[in-house]
Amino acid sequence: MLFPDRLHQAIEAKGSPAMVGLDPRPESLPEPFASRVQAGPAAAAEALKNYHRALIDVIAPHVAIIKPQSAFFEILGAAGFDAMADACSYAKERGLLVLMDAKRGDIGSTSKAYASTFLGGGFQGAFPPCDALTVNPYLGSDAAEPFLAAADAHKAGLFFLVKTSNPGAGLFQDHGTPPLADVVAGQVAEWGSTRCGESGWSSIGAVVGATRPQELAHFRSLMPKALLLLPGFGFQGGTADGLSSAFDGQGQGAVVNASRSILFAFQREDLQNLKTWEERTEMAVVEMKEQLSCVSGTRP
Amino acid sequence: MLFPDRLHQAIEAKGSPAMVGLDPRPESLPEPFASRVQAGPAAAAEALKNYHRALIDVIAPHVAIIKPQSAFFEILGAAGFDAMADACSYAKERGLLVLMDAKRGDIGSTSKAYASTFLGGGFQGAFPPCDALTVNPYLGSDAAEPFLAAADAHKAGLFFLVKTSNPGAGLFQDHGTPPLADVVAGQVAEWGSTRCGESGWSSIGAVVGATRPQELAHFRSLMPKALLLLPGFGFQGGTADGLSSAFDGQGQGAVVNASRSILFAFQREDLQNLKTWEERTEMAVVEMKEQLSCVSGTRP
Repeated sequence: MLFPDRLHQAIEAKGSPAMVGLDPRPESLPEPFASRVQAGPAAAAEALKNYHRALIDVIAPHVAIIKPQSAFFEILGAAGFDAMADACSYAKERGLLVLMDAKRGDIGSTSKAYASTFLGGGFQGAFPPCDALTVNPYLGSDAAEPFLAAADAHKAGLFFLVKTSNPGAGLFQDHGTPPLADVVAGQVAEWGSTRCGESGWSSIGAVVGATRPQELAHFRSLMPKALLLLPGFGFQGGTADGLSSAFDGQGQGAVVNASRSILFAFQREDLQNLKTWEERTEMAVVEMKEQLSCVSGTRP
Repeated sequence: MLFPDRLHQAIEAKGSPAMVGLDPRPESLPEPFASRVQAGPAAAAEALKNYHRALIDVIAPHVAIIKPQSAFFEILGAAGFDAMADACSYAKERGLLVLMDAKRGDIGSTSKAYASTFLGGGFQGAFPPCDALTVNPYLGSDAAEPFLAAADAHKAGLFFLVKTSNPGAGLFQDHGTPPLADVVAGQVAEWGSTRCGESGWSSIGAVVGATRPQELAHFRSLMPKALLLLPGFGFQGGTADGLSSAFDGQGQGAVVNASRSILFAFQREDLQNLKTWEERTEMAVVEMKEQLSCVSGTRP
């Protein structure tokens, strides 16, 4: 089954387009993990493994998909890369889809290696195959080809950066007439047009910041079949208001990512009546699903 | 000493702006390494470690700087990331500068993690600090800030992608009037203007494909102080002719990268009179230096 169809099914099953981002900051883990990270990168990576397995147990009943952010694992070196692989494997084991947020992009032969790593299992199964990958489009079409080929070969999805969630995204993404982001969106729509699943959605998606509700309808019209990854919900200021244009009315067509607002929920003053970090984290996920239910047309 | 001054000194000492890219393909290593990779990713990574240490011994007398390509290590998973760290450490030990070609770029907090990993030693020294890093500019100025801050803090260099070496680079990089690549180049010049070393060159450089000699003078004029990384020499079709506009006449101002034409030299028919892969590799490096001596104004 193609990625968009797997995602469609999982969103229906979980009743929500909510996605949780794994952006682990070793210094901001709940206990008992936080006090284990000071013994060095290997100990920190081990703590991350245990934390993420526990976290995945908490969120698996609620969400369809997770998004590990490669940067926060790489900062722990090889041990961090291993912890990232472990989180991906365990999430798959628990029935979650995994969208690797690595934002790779390079010339063709190098893109082929990145695509193999994250979508094809790497060299002799060195890394667990993920369901989808974020890709940076700056290098152009021939640089995107190996990612498209890998997506086809492994029934995986791609999310090309179109308009990102950061405040200064427009500096280059708004350049020209039409703006660069529109040109990239057009290319994403073209790549995706021949890659639609039975659900009607395409394997080739796009990243548009949840911090940009006013632009969502515009990008949706440029990419009618593309799954949209909407990062920045919560901590970065994105709210549910205005995200509805990304969805089809049945809660399909987009996934909304929150990372810090979920991961740091254990520190929230107003949740201290809940005893454990697991309960507070779960509460934050449930809240997010409720917030999204109005706009996505889903009922959690 | 700032990165551009360290590079200036090293280019002078080695008499060449030649750079060797480490793009290891496990299936294309010389023996005895090639036959060791089939036992799985860990064995392959171990073979890479040994190969790269031997390779660095061969090239260290000849070149100033190497460029590990992250993708070809990541494809071996955590063991590959470890092999990449080892190659960086050993190169530093042998007095080489290390430019990490990871082409990262993300929103601010994530860029900060990538910058820490590759320029700042990562979490508690999880990765050896590299001298410079390639950065993808697509996310804009606020996303570049953490890389600039890390470059300042660690006296490191950055090479922003401006116009890449692949045939289809123009799809997005030529978009608009002026073309996007010119706008990025202007931004690189601005970031770099306050970050010049005693040599006169800036810590903030740019990637312009060695496959694009006709555009080099143009980008040099837009970025008069930027060190230019010119990839694609040799295998990708870049030749020495026309690269001179990147240089100042004393062989300074740019580094020219070759990966496959050096790494695969051991297979060359015309070098089979040389007994070992080391001799053939060394010959390819010496040839490259000779080819570059006419345009760079250096004498190897």
